Amino acid sequence: MPKETLEDLQNGYFLYQDAEGFRFGMDAVLLAHFVRLRKGEKVCDLGCGSGIIPLLLAAQYPEAAITGLEINSRSAELAQKSVDYNGLTDRVKVVCGDIRRAETLFGRQSFKVVVSNPPYLRAGSGRQSPNEQRAAARHEVLVTLREVAAAAGRLLTSSGRFYLVHRPERLSEILSACGENHLAVKKLRLVYPYADREASLVLLEAVKGAAGGMKVLPPLIIFNKEGQYTEEVQKIYAPAADAAGKTAENEG
Amino acid sequence: MPKETLEDLQNGYFLYQDAEGFRFGMDAVLLAHFVRLRKGEKVCDLGCGSGIIPLLLAAQYPEAAITGLEINSRSAELAQKSVDYNGLTDRVKVVCGDIRRAETLFGRQSFKVVVSNPPYLRAGSGRQSPNEQRAAARHEVLVTLREVAAAAGRLLTSSGRFYLVHRPERLSEILSACGENHLAVKKLRLVYPYADREASLVLLEAVKGAAGGMKVLPPLIIFNKEGQYTEEVQKIYAPAADAAGKTAENEG
Repeated sequence: MPKETLEDLQNGYFLYQDAEGFRFGMDAVLLAHFVRLRKGEKVCDLGCGSGIIPLLLAAQYPEAAITGLEINSRSAELAQKSVDYNGLTDRVKVVCGDIRRAETLFGRQSFKVVVSNPPYLRAGSGRQSPNEQRAAARHEVLVTLREVAAAAGRLLTSSGRFYLVHRPERLSEILSACGENHLAVKKLRLVYPYADREASLVLLEAVKGAAGGMKVLPPLIIFNKEGQYTEEVQKIYAPAADAAGKTAENEG
Repeated sequence: MPKETLEDLQNGYFLYQDAEGFRFGMDAVLLAHFVRLRKGEKVCDLGCGSGIIPLLLAAQYPEAAITGLEINSRSAELAQKSVDYNGLTDRVKVVCGDIRRAETLFGRQSFKVVVSNPPYLRAGSGRQSPNEQRAAARHEVLVTLREVAAAAGRLLTSSGRFYLVHRPERLSEILSACGENHLAVKKLRLVYPYADREASLVLLEAVKGAAGGMKVLPPLIIFNKEGQYTEEVQKIYAPAADAAGKTAENEG
């Protein structure tokens, strides 16, 4: 058995991950925080890995019904283990399967919201991990950006929302893949490590069947000049601590 | 005769504009500053209005050969008047003509660099100015984004560069129009009025025939919290004053 870790997500839930496999990063946290759900919406996470986004959304939205789809059986097993551990079996489903066949698993127009933190790199570009789980999470060996967008387009109900995190390098392709699948990008947010550096991530919200007209939201800056998390990122990372701090202030 | 103004551009040159016509804005200044020219490059400004971008580039790049193309005869007349006034007739040409036929005027692959600050609004959207000059500068009544990109694609030499300023709302369309004309967007910069507001402009550099792979440059913020120009914008607006300030410091 590979060595596992159990991480405290600081939101009431805990996450199992392989010590040596793919481990979630800030991109998953930023995406989960970027997603906005209304009461009772059905959500699908395409390529959920060991379940970080379903767990973050479950904590933020206690009424959401979340399905995580993951092709790597070991990752799916870990995700299911976390769901069980946190007592979320009623609200979070984990399905082991292929994004490219998501429609046959769940049916067309079966979700109001689709989220995805897909592999960022083209197959064959850069060095690929010898670890199968990490390779598939980083490189498009099992699914491409266009296939993810196509799956989202088919799974979403009319006016359903698609949330994606990806690399700015591929922005042209991201926007055209959305367009081809009738996903109108309505909100785009660039993430910059520092205020004077190039963007490292892009977050987007697209609406199925909507008219065009994109908003580029304020820049999300990760670190201030001193190399500390900016106020906004501190809030994203410690919502519980922040809320506790506010309560303490009110009581003081 | 319409009433004219003569504006000191603070870079050694002066610009004639109609008091009641279209007057240049910050977008033209930001675009001219975003452009990077190498020695002796031939540049075409598609839709140069009364010539603000050619004059700014002429000041920044004393060796550049610049052609401004403008369909509005009154704007072209003002641009020519400014060129004459500033003694730039050897380096800056103004041509009155249609962007959609630029190729027949100048020939294919006749420029190393094309810049454009085109109308941002679709014809029929929003209120259109009764002033013909202003209407054509703001609304796509005479030329569309796709036609501008197509003209740039035809005018540019292989690996020539296209610089554009536009509205973020139309980013999907901007990127696809570039892609359709073999203009690979290599640099994108979002302009935000304040650090916590939505982007108001997008600047881009595309390279004809290049491979993909976009960089999203650091955010360009116009105003600080106190409502003053940020340091970067101050430098863009007053390069001469800034240089003078530095000299004074060195002398002090």
